[in-house]
Amino acid sequence: MRSVSIIGIEMTNFGRLEKSFKEIAAEACVGAMQDAQVPPKQIEEFVLGNFSSGTLVQQETIAPAISNSIGLPRIPATKVEGACASGGIALRYGYQMVANGLRDFVLVAGLEKMTAVSTPKATETLIEAEDREIEGRTGLTFPGFFALVTNRYSQRFGTTREEIAQVSVKNRRYGAKNPKAQFRKEVTIDDVINSRLIADPLRLLDCCAISDGAAAAVLCPTEIARKFSKEPVEVIGISQVTGRGAAFEYEDLTGFDSTKLAAEQAMRMARVSTKDIDVLELHDCFTIAEIVASEDLGFFTKGTGAKALQEGQTEIGGKIPINPSGGLLSKGHPIGATGIGQVYEVVQQLRGSAENQVSDAEIGMAHNFGATGTVCVVSILKR
Amino acid sequence: MRSVSIIGIEMTNFGRLEKSFKEIAAEACVGAMQDAQVPPKQIEEFVLGNFSSGTLVQQETIAPAISNSIGLPRIPATKVEGACASGGIALRYGYQMVANGLRDFVLVAGLEKMTAVSTPKATETLIEAEDREIEGRTGLTFPGFFALVTNRYSQRFGTTREEIAQVSVKNRRYGAKNPKAQFRKEVTIDDVINSRLIADPLRLLDCCAISDGAAAAVLCPTEIARKFSKEPVEVIGISQVTGRGAAFEYEDLTGFDSTKLAAEQAMRMARVSTKDIDVLELHDCFTIAEIVASEDLGFFTKGTGAKALQEGQTEIGGKIPINPSGGLLSKGHPIGATGIGQVYEVVQQLRGSAENQVSDAEIGMAHNFGATGTVCVVSILKR
Repeated sequence: MRSVSIIGIEMTNFGRLEKSFKEIAAEACVGAMQDAQVPPKQIEEFVLGNFSSGTLVQQETIAPAISNSIGLPRIPATKVEGACASGGIALRYGYQMVANGLRDFVLVAGLEKMTAVSTPKATETLIEAEDREIEGRTGLTFPGFFALVTNRYSQRFGTTREEIAQVSVKNRRYGAKNPKAQFRKEVTIDDVINSRLIADPLRLLDCCAISDGAAAAVLCPTEIARKFSKEPVEVIGISQVTGRGAAFEYEDLTGFDSTKLAAEQAMRMARVSTKDIDVLELHDCFTIAEIVASEDLGFFTKGTGAKALQEGQTEIGGKIPINPSGGLLSKGHPIGATGIGQVYEVVQQLRGSAENQVSDAEIGMAHNFGATGTVCVVSILKR
Repeated sequence: MRSVSIIGIEMTNFGRLEKSFKEIAAEACVGAMQDAQVPPKQIEEFVLGNFSSGTLVQQETIAPAISNSIGLPRIPATKVEGACASGGIALRYGYQMVANGLRDFVLVAGLEKMTAVSTPKATETLIEAEDREIEGRTGLTFPGFFALVTNRYSQRFGTTREEIAQVSVKNRRYGAKNPKAQFRKEVTIDDVINSRLIADPLRLLDCCAISDGAAAAVLCPTEIARKFSKEPVEVIGISQVTGRGAAFEYEDLTGFDSTKLAAEQAMRMARVSTKDIDVLELHDCFTIAEIVASEDLGFFTKGTGAKALQEGQTEIGGKIPINPSGGLLSKGHPIGATGIGQVYEVVQQLRGSAENQVSDAEIGMAHNFGATGTVCVVSILKR
């Protein structure tokens, strides 16, 4: 196994983009190749994370369509799908090809264009990430699922509505300074708890939005990375785990075993513990998701994540800065793009060029979570 | 790079199946594991080729859903997509994981359930394999595209309607003996040229049908394959190539460069030439596709494929037996399943247990072709 590094990375703005899916993908892919200073002809394989292009932009065979449009003909171009973790999966597949010596230069990307359809249609499409034979037919949406998680967590640990809203306040505060973020306005706890009800107790500002966007990265063996980039970032751990497919399969909705297992595997591979992680981009699709994942990943013991948040332990300067990019709640969540978008922020942090910089960050983690915990990818990066 | 072998394989019947997508997939996957005599707990990764489950069965995150349903929790489970070549891509990704030492046991599968939607909806979904920004919006369907190929080929080489119909006659004759085939009735040239007009000059019996089905295979290193199977089949060559995304990009529609390049690469990797191939499963989505691919793969020079067919050179006993399974035209074409379904037939041939057996077949080839030549996977197997 060879060590693998990211030598170039780019992310588009996230939000409602008045561009085609190809234009969005090209901006990220061409930007990543430019950042890497690798000419397209050196790229040997293209892996694209995308959730549901068939339904959302009526286009399948989307990886070859993009590959051809950015000047990468002939090389294998494949879409990989695993709900909201599709981007993380693309990174992992690309990582493997380079680690195992099959390829020297792989372009990985994540993309979703969601705003071309109506919000009801987008919501219906997102439900296709649930097991439709079991849970999808009950009408449970993802806000509904995470509302159940919120209620159970609050009931078990006595966490208040205001404490949970603090996730959104923190992430919007960081996102306000991120020029690529979808929402750049700070919010207060009152704003969150008085925003429109979505799925009781979750309000509008507890939920990430429907977004367009793409992110891409160029991978190569670490041993040649410095020929291309002054600031390569090494992928020292990565793991993909399949979790349970439906809410009823969990004994208790206050934790997700796919996150726990993926984090354990990635940290074992990287030979690090949570103490070594300087910055964390985490899958905060809903406010409660950040609290639960901060515990599942091992940074806080179960039931103490909300308290840690109130104490500022998840802010820059605290024990573990979480989502300095603004997270999904502020930055946006173009499904297939999110996994690579998180890695984009971690790379900026390790390069020392983030908007909300964690001082002297050396090791960062990205946590990309799909469906009802059905897929989880955890990556650990080091400068 | 380690040598990789197929130690277990299974294919469901192809056709209109009154089962859920999970049941169809499970039949193939569990069957392949049983054929391999490998218990589920030894499988380390699952890769599923599928085209458009979101549109056709309203289910994304389909690989984890299947993985969980067949007793493979926790391991990475990913859908890969590349139109009609999705199954071939799954095989290639699984191959790589084992070849490069990342995994010892990988389950690869292909699946499509297409008959749950109406024929117009299925046709509309298939068009999503074309580049919708360019060609999809012209209303060109796949029968329309291959009708253009037929007309151009006939005009350039003087091939007659009757000569082209012979592909269907041959493949239906073989398919009639294949218990897993969708269509098991022999047809005559008159039947073909008098069947319902679909896209001039293509008639109903020139076209493959809309099908449900799945196929799956278990891969492991060749060095331990005989511990599990008495009849392992080695993957000696495999290549995936991205081709052009639209008809207008071809100077001439009588050949597809993705097939040519994938065949060259796979044969170079396998260190064989066309002379060494004893049996060929080829992507005959339409009658003309078989003639064109038999040339592009290098078995006949351009323009002589139809003549070779009339002379019986593509029949069992001829120069290169093509589609003894009945091919897509007779066996059916559940999009994502086809690539692994072809490999299922080649494995049966190399084991000496095919319905239409090529005597003493030692090396076989599978040619899996997606969209307008946009993706092509060629695999070469050896007993």
